[in-house]
Amino acid sequence: MADHSVTMENTLSTLLQEKKYTTIRDVLVTMNPADIAAVFSGVEREKLPLLFRLLPKELAAESFVEMESDEQEALIRGISDSELRQVMDELYVDDAVDIVEEMPANVVQRILAQSDPEMRKEINEILQYPENSAGSVMTTEYVKLSPDMTVGDAILRIRRTGVDKETIYTCYVLQNRILVGTVSVKSLLLAPSDLQTIDSIMESNLITVTTHTDQEEVAHMMSKYNLLAIPVVDGDNRMVGIVTFDDAMDVMEDEATEDMEIMAGMTPSDKTYLRSSPFELFKHRIPWLSLLMISATFTGLILTSFEEKLAAMVCLTAFIPMLMDTGGNSGSQSSVTVIRALSLNELEFKDILKVIWKEIRTAVLCGAALSVLCFGKIMLVDNLLLRTEDVNATVALVVSLTMFVTVLCAKVVGCTLPMLAKKLGFDPAVMASPFITTIVDALSLLVYFGIATLILPQLQAIV
Amino acid sequence: MADHSVTMENTLSTLLQEKKYTTIRDVLVTMNPADIAAVFSGVEREKLPLLFRLLPKELAAESFVEMESDEQEALIRGISDSELRQVMDELYVDDAVDIVEEMPANVVQRILAQSDPEMRKEINEILQYPENSAGSVMTTEYVKLSPDMTVGDAILRIRRTGVDKETIYTCYVLQNRILVGTVSVKSLLLAPSDLQTIDSIMESNLITVTTHTDQEEVAHMMSKYNLLAIPVVDGDNRMVGIVTFDDAMDVMEDEATEDMEIMAGMTPSDKTYLRSSPFELFKHRIPWLSLLMISATFTGLILTSFEEKLAAMVCLTAFIPMLMDTGGNSGSQSSVTVIRALSLNELEFKDILKVIWKEIRTAVLCGAALSVLCFGKIMLVDNLLLRTEDVNATVALVVSLTMFVTVLCAKVVGCTLPMLAKKLGFDPAVMASPFITTIVDALSLLVYFGIATLILPQLQAIV
Repeated sequence: MADHSVTMENTLSTLLQEKKYTTIRDVLVTMNPADIAAVFSGVEREKLPLLFRLLPKELAAESFVEMESDEQEALIRGISDSELRQVMDELYVDDAVDIVEEMPANVVQRILAQSDPEMRKEINEILQYPENSAGSVMTTEYVKLSPDMTVGDAILRIRRTGVDKETIYTCYVLQNRILVGTVSVKSLLLAPSDLQTIDSIMESNLITVTTHTDQEEVAHMMSKYNLLAIPVVDGDNRMVGIVTFDDAMDVMEDEATEDMEIMAGMTPSDKTYLRSSPFELFKHRIPWLSLLMISATFTGLILTSFEEKLAAMVCLTAFIPMLMDTGGNSGSQSSVTVIRALSLNELEFKDILKVIWKEIRTAVLCGAALSVLCFGKIMLVDNLLLRTEDVNATVALVVSLTMFVTVLCAKVVGCTLPMLAKKLGFDPAVMASPFITTIVDALSLLVYFGIATLILPQLQAIV
Repeated sequence: MADHSVTMENTLSTLLQEKKYTTIRDVLVTMNPADIAAVFSGVEREKLPLLFRLLPKELAAESFVEMESDEQEALIRGISDSELRQVMDELYVDDAVDIVEEMPANVVQRILAQSDPEMRKEINEILQYPENSAGSVMTTEYVKLSPDMTVGDAILRIRRTGVDKETIYTCYVLQNRILVGTVSVKSLLLAPSDLQTIDSIMESNLITVTTHTDQEEVAHMMSKYNLLAIPVVDGDNRMVGIVTFDDAMDVMEDEATEDMEIMAGMTPSDKTYLRSSPFELFKHRIPWLSLLMISATFTGLILTSFEEKLAAMVCLTAFIPMLMDTGGNSGSQSSVTVIRALSLNELEFKDILKVIWKEIRTAVLCGAALSVLCFGKIMLVDNLLLRTEDVNATVALVVSLTMFVTVLCAKVVGCTLPMLAKKLGFDPAVMASPFITTIVDALSLLVYFGIATLILPQLQAIV
């Protein structure tokens, strides 16, 4: 895809220099809005309005929706009021809202001034819903039917009003603005007779969300029930809009990206990587880096407090990275698994004991395997091969035992913290690798020196 | 949702004990297939066939599709051949394939024996495509039109054949089995006249995938172009099937889960967490844990080789966890960001220099901020507050400088490795936190002792 855009950019630049506008138009109309937007993103900003004017009205608006917000802004600033009005007339309300949300105030004013009063009212309504709620991603343009209509009437109504609706494939049956059923165009077309009434063929077993439902939950429900669109109702059960599958797909992608960013210790960003400046990346990365760096002080303090014991048996130091890393990795595995299951609604807080019990059994298996491997590796590599001073079977036993206990602690901590976070209303994704690693580092050192002092006679004299 | 199922399970158990089958039926028919499947998963296996028989034919088949494979298997074993035939008759081909893929051989034979010959042929064809390819997730049931049909003919054809098609909303215009255009039901319904021909209203600017396109790419394309369904063509450009949006949504969820699992050092699993046994979890977790544990040996060796220097200035040990952890975290941030951008097609290998340059600038910002913070923290906490032996401004400088260089190395390694992995045909997600941490650990120690030897006079005597 991207390769295609790059070649097209070069072709367009050449054609633009040669002022071959008809050719450019002929090329652009064969393309999809998403591809046109990709090509436009590589063109100099000043040329954008010129290119944009070459597009037929509808394709222009559709391509506009697909552009990144900085290009949209440049374009709005470069076109006339009447051109902007033409674009606004073609947009669906939810797309218009997405654009408005990203623009600076003076551009928003111009957009609203060029929208028709109905559109302006709907944009303002949707803008009031909290960010990431169903209300903020819904569209208010859907096909309304009434229960007493016939199938023939319904098809006529779709033919008359459908052109402006984001989807016509699911129609909504309202009585006094309350949703009483849904009818698919499939069931309308396949109905045995045009004279049947809507209430006799409608689906009255409804799946709805409210304006305040989180967009992630909305996407999950649409995926779970295989819905093309889901109706959004207000607190009084009146229908206010629909969320369509294409928006749900975007939400799913965005939410997965956000979870991954948070799990890697970053504050989530709306911008794509290549469009983020180093300073923006820095702002998203430095908070957790600083916090975790400072927390690592505790691990340092633990190490300092065992300084004399380490000095008495320096060979113990060599195994610290292996113990800390394996602990961290074991904990991350559990936390990431639990975080993802929570976010897909496969787990709930009430499952916490089940989860801990499962992790304990898994940890025993992993811990046992790693201990044996670790014991063998130390005896083979450090003792036999490298003949490292002081490293003998007792030391190998200390390290292996520590390995087992650390893996056990790490997996229990790793699965418990995300569930507690969710229960307390925090994002469980925060409790992923970096956070767990910091805790497990400290734990593994405490276990290490505890076991070492217990088993190694050289250390028992040192308090 | 899940709470709802739990309450329903109790109600159903009570009703089952009281043998109130009519009530059970009345309750079940108000529910959605996905919810029925959730409720059934909590019921004893032996009761499943009894409950299943209470459902109307179509709802039974739809609920069957939504069940987990072990319940499907139990159910198939518990129902008669003629009941199985009824279920198979109601299934779409792609759903039938999903079921067949999960069943043991003897169950598969029974399923195929009870499918009609057409269905059997299509199942066998789809089963031949590689796992995770467009061919393996497509369905072969779609509406075919020809270019010379009129709009009226097309609507008639949909009415006659649409009931068995997974979607009727996008129809495919074929000429000698080659796809020449698509027509939406919306454009059919909104066409000015029933006498217009299909080729005059069809969209001939086609977006297609081939049978071997990766399912993740298929989902991305559908999301990018907002498609309800995407046509799948074979090597000779003949149309063989479609992938619908609901399958694309499932693919998106599964692929994001898989990426997260791989990034956390696990081999991906198809089963949900609660359904995986501790031994299964162990099998998915132990390979990377063992590999990374063994790799940490190198970090240990580096530490051992600087043993004498550490013994000469024991206070340096206390800062090792902080340096290693911050390095690991910095590297993970870059690698996860790049891995996600690669998987969303926002980045390609040709951007590698752009990415490295961006990460270097970001690393300079992060490294500078962390160095200053780290210098301040050491002078304030370790020197002034705790009065740790040997810790002075020179030591603080060594640690801060190491911090800066480590962050720089970590970010460059973190962004480069996933891109190289992708270029070499590996999954970039493997190059995430655990892997990067192991490399950065070793790097940070080398940098630490290098800088320490350079700056601290106490260490220069020791070779």
